[in-house]
Amino acid sequence: MPEIRKDPFTDEQVIIAMERAKRPTDFHDDGSNKEEKTCFFCRGREKLTPSETFRIDDDNGEWIVRSFPNKFPILCSDMTDGNGIHEVIVDNCGHDKSFFNMNIKEFKYMLLAYKNRYIALYNTASTQYVSVFKNYLKKAGASLDHPHSQIISLPIIPNIIMTELNNCKKFYEYRGEIMHQVLIREERDKGDRVIFETDNFIVIAPFASKYNYETQIIYKNKGLFQSMTDRIITELSEVFFGLFSRYGNVLGRFPFNLFLHAHPNLMEDAPYNWHLHITPRVSQQAGFELSTGIYVNDIPPEKAAKLLISAGH
Amino acid sequence: MPEIRKDPFTDEQVIIAMERAKRPTDFHDDGSNKEEKTCFFCRGREKLTPSETFRIDDDNGEWIVRSFPNKFPILCSDMTDGNGIHEVIVDNCGHDKSFFNMNIKEFKYMLLAYKNRYIALYNTASTQYVSVFKNYLKKAGASLDHPHSQIISLPIIPNIIMTELNNCKKFYEYRGEIMHQVLIREERDKGDRVIFETDNFIVIAPFASKYNYETQIIYKNKGLFQSMTDRIITELSEVFFGLFSRYGNVLGRFPFNLFLHAHPNLMEDAPYNWHLHITPRVSQQAGFELSTGIYVNDIPPEKAAKLLISAGH
Repeated sequence: MPEIRKDPFTDEQVIIAMERAKRPTDFHDDGSNKEEKTCFFCRGREKLTPSETFRIDDDNGEWIVRSFPNKFPILCSDMTDGNGIHEVIVDNCGHDKSFFNMNIKEFKYMLLAYKNRYIALYNTASTQYVSVFKNYLKKAGASLDHPHSQIISLPIIPNIIMTELNNCKKFYEYRGEIMHQVLIREERDKGDRVIFETDNFIVIAPFASKYNYETQIIYKNKGLFQSMTDRIITELSEVFFGLFSRYGNVLGRFPFNLFLHAHPNLMEDAPYNWHLHITPRVSQQAGFELSTGIYVNDIPPEKAAKLLISAGH
Repeated sequence: MPEIRKDPFTDEQVIIAMERAKRPTDFHDDGSNKEEKTCFFCRGREKLTPSETFRIDDDNGEWIVRSFPNKFPILCSDMTDGNGIHEVIVDNCGHDKSFFNMNIKEFKYMLLAYKNRYIALYNTASTQYVSVFKNYLKKAGASLDHPHSQIISLPIIPNIIMTELNNCKKFYEYRGEIMHQVLIREERDKGDRVIFETDNFIVIAPFASKYNYETQIIYKNKGLFQSMTDRIITELSEVFFGLFSRYGNVLGRFPFNLFLHAHPNLMEDAPYNWHLHITPRVSQQAGFELSTGIYVNDIPPEKAAKLLISAGH
């Protein structure tokens, strides 16, 4: 059974999850793909996965997006620390689809599944925080090829989220404004890290980018991730499509992680704007980062933004 | 010029270091070695490196270990935040040497160089902290094959070190004992995470291990890293030799990082024992870790310790 441990010196949180070691992989150690074999996530293989928790069908009744419990969960129910649910969301039925070739409609189906599973996990007993993330290619931690995302409910609030919320709370008490709102205004004034903007979203290369070509999609308004309307979801799909077209033009296909930072349970009023991180994994964290926790980034975000801005024309 | 930035939301520290992007590499993107070419770190190529800062010679006057400034530094002098010095220590003259085939004497020469450069950098103006680390193989962030380590003086104290020191200080005020001493006693009593022990060092698999097969070499006494006597250095060389023989027996050669956590400048009296971390890089940090800062480890440290204990017999 998984166990949550805390380092008494660094306060770092670790989940010891033995079940994970058994999970299958499509990749060799060098990151190259194994010979073709049965994909568990393709159409027609539904019986190879645990029972479905959500699906969206096309007009012929065939699924486009579906989700189910992860067979090799990071967390599970009945832990001493509370329950955790870990699900897989298959982004799209197409085995060869990726963020680099999905259309706006396909992004929208995926985001509808994100929202549905987010609400389901958020409302589960003992959930303190829900983490949504995606690993693309082996270098970013993917073990299977077929495009998929993951969602986990946690019985704790991660330290990193607590730190963000505390800083935002302090800022709000001191300045009477949400830190994200001030950041958006200042980035817009400065201009050299804003990649593009829509009515409700702004895409930036963060000032303290830890990863080469890192970006953030920030929701500009107050509100919860799970409260996104259909119109907002369509707009976010367009943002994804626009951002990944630019990424593709600059870097081709590359390993990346996507993840959401949003309000914890019972902290819905926190002065905090939910946002999505995209972290390309083209550089490598080495001994200096592990030793000091200080990240080294050899591509200034201003340069990354400039390239991504130009790539949109 | 490198610039130290702080994320206002997460407090995370980042160094934007453009010069690093120019550094050469012995590896292809998939981690395999490029065709043989001139190694900058081998004997006879001394003119290809910046001027030597330290060396130990053999009886014929040929160097065994040497150090010099890093040509592609993470930090440099004249930064707005203060100075930083970044040096390379060539662990051994042998191109094919590694921690898996070095003998006790070779470990000792390397550690003597660590100590010499540590003292030199520690005593440099504006140094707040000195980081010593090693990246072995591309998957652990090495860009060159020849066995080498790195040392950096920082004009700031890394957050992770401040957190460790604060926790140790609080513990000491509350309990009147150094947290490391209590940890050592408790680990010894429990026994299932202690790999081996010598007069002055204990080698453990930490309770909250973040990486598969992670270990720590903890110095058991009060004292500074730079105050190690010749006898203690010999003992530590034996510890390295013993630990990496065990590692080799269990895992073969594998990518890893080594790093030191020690007292910051002007905090020499902190109730803190210096220690070395060895973090194998056989697993991959993915979206969940990036999103939450919570590490997932699918090999319990008790199991890692058991394997490493058996491998010594």
